Amino acid sequence: MISDLSLPVVLSARGADVLVRRAEPGDLHAVMRLLADDPVSAGRGDVASGEDEGAYSSALSRILDDAGNDLVVAVDADREVVGTLQLTVIPGMARRGSTRLLVEAVRVDSTRRSSGIGGALMRWVVEEAAPELRAPLVQLTSDAARTDAHRFYLRLGFVDSHVGFKYAVTLPGS
Amino acid sequence: MISDLSLPVVLSARGADVLVRRAEPGDLHAVMRLLADDPVSAGRGDVASGEDEGAYSSALSRILDDAGNDLVVAVDADREVVGTLQLTVIPGMARRGSTRLLVEAVRVDSTRRSSGIGGALMRWVVEEAAPELRAPLVQLTSDAARTDAHRFYLRLGFVDSHVGFKYAVTLPGS
Repeated sequence: MISDLSLPVVLSARGADVLVRRAEPGDLHAVMRLLADDPVSAGRGDVASGEDEGAYSSALSRILDDAGNDLVVAVDADREVVGTLQLTVIPGMARRGSTRLLVEAVRVDSTRRSSGIGGALMRWVVEEAAPELRAPLVQLTSDAARTDAHRFYLRLGFVDSHVGFKYAVTLPGS
Repeated sequence: MISDLSLPVVLSARGADVLVRRAEPGDLHAVMRLLADDPVSAGRGDVASGEDEGAYSSALSRILDDAGNDLVVAVDADREVVGTLQLTVIPGMARRGSTRLLVEAVRVDSTRRSSGIGGALMRWVVEEAAPELRAPLVQLTSDAARTDAHRFYLRLGFVDSHVGFKYAVTLPGS
């Protein structure tokens, strides 16, 4: 259960400490802004449009209401949201019944890049969150275009052992 | 909610029809056997050892009890389990609040390969399960060594747009 996670927690980034806490409904616009701030996300339609606010708002509710999911945000000393990521706890049969911790949608404010926030967040995931959640395997996928992010994950000790496949489904009525 | 899925369902494979249903506790040994039957899984420790039965059994309970997860099995006319896969419904903010359907641990009995069971299962995932679950995006990762599987997913219409990273966590006390 994701509720086993000890939050909030203060992390030391190179620039300054950040507080990591569970996202709240009031973080909606900050998270929409972080997604739109990223060229790959923006290219997929995440442009923080007011028209999409309802879809993002109901997605945020679904995440916060789901026992296996949490959206976390990193805030600076001024309580500005400067980073976010989503965690999903996935029980599994493979690897002798290992629970997996999936990381999705890691984003750091473009004006704060290279200040160590992303590294502090990901080290927290593998060193604190995964052990607390009894998950021996942390996994994520990164768009093939994000070569800087790939170097970042390899430096943190991740292994690029897999190919990530996606299939876009056309839903009836949408 | 994964319970929105219409199961059981009969799928036409090239060889013969298979019935796809939710896994039950009594499927434990059959699923352990399917994992051990796969060289990549076996290399990671999935060897259907009696010593690991407790770990697999509690993992199966966690999956079946989890509102976002389901393990499904494909059974033949003799009620033999010939395939399995795990589905996880993941609400998300990215892609304008898109829910994702994650597919893990797709396995088909090695004596039944090339009989169309894997293709029938994966077409069911993208054509029926994902729409029922209102998930516009299906995703999975496949070990880089599984080059035959990669061609199979590409033929089905998946796009190999991402790199899959894993991090092995050493849990205290394990």
